[in-house]
Amino acid sequence: MEYLDSYRNRAVLVTGGLGFIGSNLCRRLADLGARVTAVDSLLPDYGGNLFNLEGYEDKVRINIADVRGHAMEYLVQGQDVVFNLAGQVSHIDSMTDPFTDLEINCRSQLWILEALRKRNPEAKIVYAGTRQVYGRPQRLPVDENHPLAPADVNGINKISGEFYHLVYHQAYQIRACSLRLTNTFGPRQLIRHNRQGFIGWFMKKAVLGETIEVFGDGAQRRDFDYVDDVVDAFLRAGASEASNGQVFNLGGGPPISLLDLAQDLVRLSEKSDIKIVPFPEERKRIDIGDFFSDARKIETTLGWKSTTPFADGLARTVEYYRAHQEHYL
Amino acid sequence: MEYLDSYRNRAVLVTGGLGFIGSNLCRRLADLGARVTAVDSLLPDYGGNLFNLEGYEDKVRINIADVRGHAMEYLVQGQDVVFNLAGQVSHIDSMTDPFTDLEINCRSQLWILEALRKRNPEAKIVYAGTRQVYGRPQRLPVDENHPLAPADVNGINKISGEFYHLVYHQAYQIRACSLRLTNTFGPRQLIRHNRQGFIGWFMKKAVLGETIEVFGDGAQRRDFDYVDDVVDAFLRAGASEASNGQVFNLGGGPPISLLDLAQDLVRLSEKSDIKIVPFPEERKRIDIGDFFSDARKIETTLGWKSTTPFADGLARTVEYYRAHQEHYL
Repeated sequence: MEYLDSYRNRAVLVTGGLGFIGSNLCRRLADLGARVTAVDSLLPDYGGNLFNLEGYEDKVRINIADVRGHAMEYLVQGQDVVFNLAGQVSHIDSMTDPFTDLEINCRSQLWILEALRKRNPEAKIVYAGTRQVYGRPQRLPVDENHPLAPADVNGINKISGEFYHLVYHQAYQIRACSLRLTNTFGPRQLIRHNRQGFIGWFMKKAVLGETIEVFGDGAQRRDFDYVDDVVDAFLRAGASEASNGQVFNLGGGPPISLLDLAQDLVRLSEKSDIKIVPFPEERKRIDIGDFFSDARKIETTLGWKSTTPFADGLARTVEYYRAHQEHYL
Repeated sequence: MEYLDSYRNRAVLVTGGLGFIGSNLCRRLADLGARVTAVDSLLPDYGGNLFNLEGYEDKVRINIADVRGHAMEYLVQGQDVVFNLAGQVSHIDSMTDPFTDLEINCRSQLWILEALRKRNPEAKIVYAGTRQVYGRPQRLPVDENHPLAPADVNGINKISGEFYHLVYHQAYQIRACSLRLTNTFGPRQLIRHNRQGFIGWFMKKAVLGETIEVFGDGAQRRDFDYVDDVVDAFLRAGASEASNGQVFNLGGGPPISLLDLAQDLVRLSEKSDIKIVPFPEERKRIDIGDFFSDARKIETTLGWKSTTPFADGLARTVEYYRAHQEHYL
């Protein structure tokens, strides 16, 4: 495929490169022959994990740095593509400590974009946005024209991060675009605590054979993307000129309820069970209910589709954590 | 009028209370019998001016403080209504120094809202939003459902500020709402430099009898609100429960071209003239062209309308600056 070949010998920077999606992306880029630098601050509890690049230590240059600061001005130089995935993803943490979320998800983006503007305005940059910008859906499925109405501070700061990219495109012709990720799952995700969403937490319980607690009735439906598919979306966006100045939803696969997800995991685990518990107040007030997206824009523009069958992705993920659980617990 | 009577003996805090709209609001509130505290940091070049409360020194408590910081936790206590107007309004400054704009327009709002959440969750808060959240209009007139697509960093940070208010309403039941201001003019605006929009700058040139430089062809049309009308909108929003969790456009009056504005000012000044000059590059790239709003929502919900005839407002404004120019130049 042409877009895959285009990465051979290209210089690529991945912010959040030791995190869940970032590390999977780094590994794939290295396999495609790119010269990859992974930048990560390894802030505790955010998901960065050196083990995520295990086996790739010679193929990916690991640079520990906070994206907030002047180090970025050096690091962006000479890069052909920047995949910009650094951030914190906990909705609940953004409500208990909104200032830190602002620092990590919003202010950080100005550092990255100012570095590009000053030192490398020719680079392409792909931002990891989120479906959280839409908040509680007003209609389903949610396309890119759905009103922006975030339900928590994290969603607000992620909107700013995305808008900064679009304004830097419009005002300074930086070749920026954003992918609005939905629920991504797969190997190398943080599963240790329950503040980064239910998937990692359910996964941990399944791997340990413990009880999976489902909030409410578990009837909320979401669309899930296996991480390899999400990596493919980044690769397509990073190799495209048609993506400049655009935002694209990911997702678009069949909606699956949280209870179904839990039941599938119980079957794979062969040990866990499920307990339905009331929604904790602090989560209830920022919950968005059902969410699934209309991802036809990225299919039309970049040829991307969520293709990995959910059951296959889930089985591979459980297998991964079983084999490597000591690095994730 | 009932909403006006409701302010008698009420404790009211106005952030940005020495600024353009904030000071006009403080004066009106004091006239209505409210116990008013004006908070302002008097940051140079932002528009705060002690002369703006001239004659009201005994009726308004002036408290110099930055809204970013723990002082707000004390200051919000016991307040019935908070009118939240502190901010920086220069589009051009937000591009040359995006970090400061983030501090002043975005991070500041978390300080204010966290202070309310912790110390006075019963208070009503009215936020000064902006039409800039819409960016370059995709259709005219612009109603509240128009997509958010800011054209500069200031517009992005003002979106965040507004969304924080809405999320604190949704998650914590803070009685918050936002007014999206369009082009406001009138006495007590900063006119000393040209980085806060064309109105103040044109006004200065008219008062001094100098040449008014109009960028491009001056054909861009805008809707203008006289500051007394804007103050009235704040008073209505602050006294209403129907406004909670809502955003409202102001504006809605007849669109007027920048060239027409300049010509009206030349007539009033009896000395100035007009020169058409090319758009400077740094302004061109963030210019939004024509803008005028559909303000029917606030008319329906709060009974507000932009009522002062443009010519009357303009004449009163010129007269004010002629009488007090030494305090504004």
